[in-house]
Formats: sequence, structure tokens, C-alpha cells
Amino acid sequence: MTVESPLPLYDVPTARKTILRRPPWDEAVEQPAVRRAVAAVFGPDVSPWEAVRRIVQDVRRRGDEALRHWTERLDRVPVASFRVPQAALQEALNTLDPALRRVLEAAADRIRAFHQAQPLHAWLTQALGGSLGHLLRPLERVGVYVPGGSAPLPSTVLMTVIPAKVAGVERVIVVTPPNRGYADREVPVDPALLAAAALAGADEVYTVGGAQAIAALAYGTESIPKVDKIVGPGNIFVTMAKKLVYGDVGIDGLAGPTETLIVADGSANPEWVAADLLAQAEHDPLAAAILLSPDLAFIQRVQQAVAQQLPRRARAEVIRLSLQHRGGAVHTRDLEEALDLANAYAPEHLALAVADPWRWLPKVRHAGCVFLGEHSFEVLGDYLAGPNHVLPTGGSARYASGLHVGSFMRWIGLVALDPETARDLAPLAAAFAQAETLEAHAAAAEARMERSGQSAVGSPR
Amino acid sequence: MTVESPLPLYDVPTARKTILRRPPWDEAVEQPAVRRAVAAVFGPDVSPWEAVRRIVQDVRRRGDEALRHWTERLDRVPVASFRVPQAALQEALNTLDPALRRVLEAAADRIRAFHQAQPLHAWLTQALGGSLGHLLRPLERVGVYVPGGSAPLPSTVLMTVIPAKVAGVERVIVVTPPNRGYADREVPVDPALLAAAALAGADEVYTVGGAQAIAALAYGTESIPKVDKIVGPGNIFVTMAKKLVYGDVGIDGLAGPTETLIVADGSANPEWVAADLLAQAEHDPLAAAILLSPDLAFIQRVQQAVAQQLPRRARAEVIRLSLQHRGGAVHTRDLEEALDLANAYAPEHLALAVADPWRWLPKVRHAGCVFLGEHSFEVLGDYLAGPNHVLPTGGSARYASGLHVGSFMRWIGLVALDPETARDLAPLAAAFAQAETLEAHAAAAEARMERSGQSAVGSPR
Repeated sequence: MTVESPLPLYDVPTARKTILRRPPWDEAVEQPAVRRAVAAVFGPDVSPWEAVRRIVQDVRRRGDEALRHWTERLDRVPVASFRVPQAALQEALNTLDPALRRVLEAAADRIRAFHQAQPLHAWLTQALGGSLGHLLRPLERVGVYVPGGSAPLPSTVLMTVIPAKVAGVERVIVVTPPNRGYADREVPVDPALLAAAALAGADEVYTVGGAQAIAALAYGTESIPKVDKIVGPGNIFVTMAKKLVYGDVGIDGLAGPTETLIVADGSANPEWVAADLLAQAEHDPLAAAILLSPDLAFIQRVQQAVAQQLPRRARAEVIRLSLQHRGGAVHTRDLEEALDLANAYAPEHLALAVADPWRWLPKVRHAGCVFLGEHSFEVLGDYLAGPNHVLPTGGSARYASGLHVGSFMRWIGLVALDPETARDLAPLAAAFAQAETLEAHAAAAEARMERSGQSAVGSPR
Repeated sequence: MTVESPLPLYDVPTARKTILRRPPWDEAVEQPAVRRAVAAVFGPDVSPWEAVRRIVQDVRRRGDEALRHWTERLDRVPVASFRVPQAALQEALNTLDPALRRVLEAAADRIRAFHQAQPLHAWLTQALGGSLGHLLRPLERVGVYVPGGSAPLPSTVLMTVIPAKVAGVERVIVVTPPNRGYADREVPVDPALLAAAALAGADEVYTVGGAQAIAALAYGTESIPKVDKIVGPGNIFVTMAKKLVYGDVGIDGLAGPTETLIVADGSANPEWVAADLLAQAEHDPLAAAILLSPDLAFIQRVQQAVAQQLPRRARAEVIRLSLQHRGGAVHTRDLEEALDLANAYAPEHLALAVADPWRWLPKVRHAGCVFLGEHSFEVLGDYLAGPNHVLPTGGSARYASGLHVGSFMRWIGLVALDPETARDLAPLAAAFAQAETLEAHAAAAEARMERSGQSAVGSPR
């Protein structure tokens, strides 16, 4: 018996074909809303990819002039100067509601402490003759994209800028679109976002968004510096631009709609699970909030709780659309099957609301972040548990990690062989090179065989 | 006074504008040879990007049928079955020249030992209430692209497959184009390459190459499994295909021509430095072999040695083209300036052939792999020093690392707060959510404030 609920119930085979199916990452490009937005600016014959390509190329060629053009055309907010005066950040922090300031500070402190605790270090081994290992070096310049518009997210500023600064990045450059809601201010940006930038230690902030901001960070303009890597979430146009510029600059990944998968047994609190599903669904009609449980009676209690809570939610309409098209409850044979489905789906967020979550943890293979037990609910992770909330979506958790200090560093191989080892290895390298018909490689190795010991260079210490 | 030499001499301002300039990563797409190759198959009106897009889409839609079509059309080697029988790998190893086998084994042992030594571990901290940290999980399926054709590289098999297996990847799937030189064999692949696959522990090998192989790995066909990430170098078509499929699958980066930058002072052996430059240049007319030195007399000795050695090299013509267009010696003010130029260039390989290389190491910020002292010459790194030879090119060392065990793993965030901490943080999360106008997020946090302590779920241990 299925309870009438905004949270649809699926059996496993149906779920696999619908809500648990992974479409191609760029399916969103084909949404009618995206096509319409492109047509309104470029006419009906220009594809979304072509539109983004034109914006990126224009900024690359014309710099600030193009940046100004596209900002006026697409954001429709006049921006006197892209650069936000550094003093405006501190002032936004100083004039922020003190209660909110304390919240931002507490979040910043926990996020910083967590990222500082990750044990990533340069290393050397002496076991192979001389010293071999990896240097670990921070990136020099990082660009952070922070979405603006109707829902600016100061939490994203903390989650991107803080780990970059913990890693030792010299220049962390935040870009965020000018916000129509603050168009009358000198700096048309949500003050909480500026305050978060001050707290996190952003070195520069610019009011520019969309594909044009990504192009500016990738290639530099008169007013915006070229960076080494661009991180942070954005809408589909931002994401397409990131894919286009990748190679000339690093990127953290291709963000898609957010997803939560909750694996629960009958021991979980159905009202909490319902509340967590609604929280996830309110982000976006394309967001996915999915419950997997072997306990049908429990699922029904969650469905009832969803039905009761939904009308009280401010963003009920978004939630309804999300649950109807992307969300649902899946009745699994057992927890084992639920975990198998979770691994195949590779969710951005995976919550284990089960009696003994640590017991199930070894089965978790693919997820962005895992929440153990229903006290560790996702909303805490969104803001201030500590781990990063910029996480792989769309199934990319199968190959990518969320942001962490390592996202802002590089492992540089280090080869410092002692002369004896080098002499021993030279004939092997020469033989290998001959097998690959790289004769000059062989000759470089043979030169060391003839002449070893005659170098004026001391052995590396 | 400049010595007549195949290694041109540059001053710093000229070098910055020529050999040390970083062109866009995809400049190679516009090479006449690439255009001609595309025109020969698709006609004169199809761009290289469009050609690669068509191949990828075709394989995605038609699977093996398309794979067979493009293999016949582009590789022109009949392939009865893409899958190489697993027994053929072991047989190739068993029948390999014993001396070469010992070389491959020695290389495999050192590469394995180095990658096993990298200290990457899951971690937890209890300092923030409960347990927070990262799981570290291997990828499940990895595809390795190994170039074939005129210069098959067994060393690349070792450098890609071994770290993947060390990381714990379950299925490592090697693809390599069918090789015309072995078209009469049952398996048209260089036996040394198959032997290396056996030694490295490859789980499957397929004789398919080019953009069609990348598409097969990204989307799967009847005979080739879809993977989670594709790694390994390839030609420009392979690289373009990797960029196209990125997002539906992970990639290691966009490989370009190989580069070595040698920083040397007067203490270095000019003949060794010359031999190392020639080894680098023999890869490809587009390869870059560059010397930076403040010692003009030393540069002249290297130029003389290059002139003397070059005629003796088997690939002299390739070397000559490379040195003429991409390589050279740059006379710097001092070693400091040489290191600054090296960091700005961010070379794939950086060799410090100076009297006290460890002293200069802290100045190294951007490189794929650094070689300390001229005993640690790059050819050893190519084959068996231990660190990986699949390294970032084209300046991408500013944001990317070479392959390492971490390239085959993901950090999964872990949140297991204790109930007291969760209760303390819930009001802060609620306030933060309200500031972001995410009311359902606030409600999920508030639910814990009302009901904390009533959950049937035990606290995570």
C-alpha cells in the first residue's frame, strides 16, 4: 500500500531506469529554459555551446571591454568598476548583524580547523638510492566562482577561499555576478558574501559573473588577473565555460544539480529524514533527494512526514517539482542492496541513517561526502561541520573528490639519485631506450656509463 | 660571441617572446598536418574538432560497429577481435628477450616501490566533536591509453598501470592502437608492450586507438567496458577526444609535446647536458629542450657538444627540427633569474644541473618533476628512477600533478558528529541557512533542536 505523498515510491528496477539513472553530464544544456535564454540574446539559431564559445572568445580578445559589454547585456546591472575595494570587504564584516557574524566566524573556524588537519606532506624515501619523493607546492593564483543572483551563498565563499588559503595559495580571487537586489549600492553584492570573503581571507573580489567571468579568470583582462585554476559551483553557462577553458587553466570539475541519497533503516527518525529530503529538494527543481530503505513501513512514515512538512516550507513549489521529477523513495531488498545502488549512483551526499553506520561504512565506495548517523545531517555539512561542501555531482564522485587542501596543491616528482645508483641504473635505462628505439635517450644514459665519476657536480645531499 | 650550433642562443627578452612563451593548449589542432589528416578522411570543410566529435558520437551511438569502422578507416589494420587474450600477455612476457625482460622487471620493481611509498591515507580527527575526516577509496575502473604506431612505449604501460594497481583499482583496462608493423600477427601489438602489460598487472588489453578508443572507454561498447577515468598520453586527436568526453568520465589531463628545461651553472658537464637536450628533442619536432644558464662560456661548450653529438644520433632530423623551432639556450643574469623563468614556464621536466641543487630546490614552484644534480638525469626518470613519467605539459604544471597513486583514488568527506556537537551546531546552521534564505535547510536543523536526544539511532562510535 502506498501512501499518497509528494515523495513518490519506486521499486528497484523502476528506480534504476528513472531517478537512479545517470544522464550525460551536459543534458542540462538541452533544457528549454537554457535554449530560450540563449535565443533571447543570440537569436534562435545559436546553440548554447556556440553562445558560450562566443562570450569566452570575445573576452579573450577584447578583455575588459567585452567584460563590460556582456555584464550589461546579461546581468543588466551597471558596474562602475569590477574590482571591489578591499576596504569594502572589511566594512561589510564590521557592519554585519553581529549574530550572523558570530555564525560566519564559527563556521570559518571549523572549516579552517578541518582543512588544516588533513595530513598532506611532501615526502622522500631513501630506500631506492639517494632521495626520491614528491614536493608539495601550493598553486599561485586561484579563481573562485561564487554564484549570486537570487540566492547568494556566503557559505560557498568560506568553503572555497579557506582551503585555498590553508594550502598556501598567494592570490585567491573571488568573482561573483553583480546582484540586482543591491544595484543601488556602490558594490552591488550581498554584504554577507563580502563579509564572508573578508573572514575567509580572499585577496581580491570582482563583481563579474557568468561565462564572461570564467573567461576573464582563464585568460586575464586589464582589470582581472589570469589564474592557474578556477573552482566553485555555477550555473550551466558557467560550467560550460569551465569546460571550454580547461587546458588553458585548471578547473575543479563540472558542477551539476545537487544530490542527496539517504540510506535508512527502521531505526531512523522519519521526521528528520523527511526534513533532510526537503532541505535538499529546495535548492533547485533539478536537485535530487532520494531515500533508499528496505523498510516499507518506515518509507511510508517518511512519506507522511514529507506530506505534513511540505506545505509549511517557504520554497514548497521548488521542493514539489524536485521530488516529483528527481526525487523519491526506493524500496530495496535489504541494506546491502541499498548500498550497492548508492555506489552505482555515486551521490554527492550520502547519509547513512542506520542503526550502526560504522558497520556499513566499509561498503561505501563512491560518494562525495558521507554522513554517519542522523545526527550528522547534511545541513550541518553544508555550513559548518568542517568538511567541504563543494563536492562532485552527476556521478563524477566515481572519479573526482570534493574540494580539499590538496585541490590547491601539486605533487612535484623529485629525483635525486646518488651517483652509484645512477651508474647502476644507466645501463638498464640505455637498454630500455634501445627497445623503444629512442637512440638519443640511450646515448644520454651511455654518456654517464663512460664518464661517471668525472662530473664536477657533487652528489645531492 | 655565439658559436655556430644547432642549439640557438637567446637573450631573456627574446626567449620570453619565443621559446618560453606558452601558446594556448590546443594550438596543435591548427597544425597543417592535423588539418590535412582530417581533410583526407572527412573532406576539406570539416574542422578537427568536428571530426573528433563525429567519431566520438558515432562510437557512443553504434558501439563496436563504429569502433570497427573507424579502426579500419583510420588505422588500416584488420583487427579480428579487439580483446587481446589474457594468455597472450603472459606469452609475450615468456618469449621476450631475457635481457629486455630483466630490464622491464627492474623498472617495474622500482616504479612499484616508489608508488607504494607515497604516504596517502584516510584520516580522522576527533578535535571537532565526534569524527571528521576523509575516506580514501580507489577508483573502480581505469582506462589507460598507450600510444602505438611508430614508437610504442612499454615504459608508459608500466608508468600508468602500476600506480593504478598500487592504488587498488579493480579493473585496469589498456587500449593501444593496432600496429601496422605487427599486422601479420594474431595480436597486432608490439610484444614488449604486451609483456609490460603482463608485468604491470593490466586486467584487460584491447587493440583499439585514437579518438574511437577514448569514446569506447568513456561510454562503453559491447566489447569494451565503460571506465571511470582515462589516463595516459596520446596524440592530438586522442587529447581532443579526452577533452570532449570529460565530465562523463574523468581524465588525467590534456597531454601536449614533451618539455625539458635544464638550469645549469658552470660546474655542470657540458657533454652530459648536451646529451640530455638531444634525448629530449628526439621525441618529436614539437618537443622542447631548453637550457638556462648564467654562464655564457658554459653555454658555448654545450652548443659545441650538441654540434658534435647531433650527427651521431639516429633521429638527428627530428632533433634538428625540435632544437631549431622549440629549443635553445637562454643566457640569464644569474641562477635566480633562471629559476624565475623556469617557474613561469612550469616545465614538465626541470633539471637542476648546478653545484648545490638542494639549495635551489625551495625556489622551485611549478614543474612536473624535478631532477637534482646531473646524476639524476631525465632519461632515468623516463624509465626506472621510480617517480612517474606521465607529467603535466604545456604549462599545466601550474595547476596539475603528474600521475601518482592519488590520481587513482578519491578523498570522500566523512562527517560523524557526536550528538552533543550536532546539537550545539544546529542553531548556528539554522541561522546560516536563514541568511541564505534556504528555509527548509533551517527547518532540518531546527528539527534536531526540538527533538534531540529522542532518536533511536545510537551515536556513531
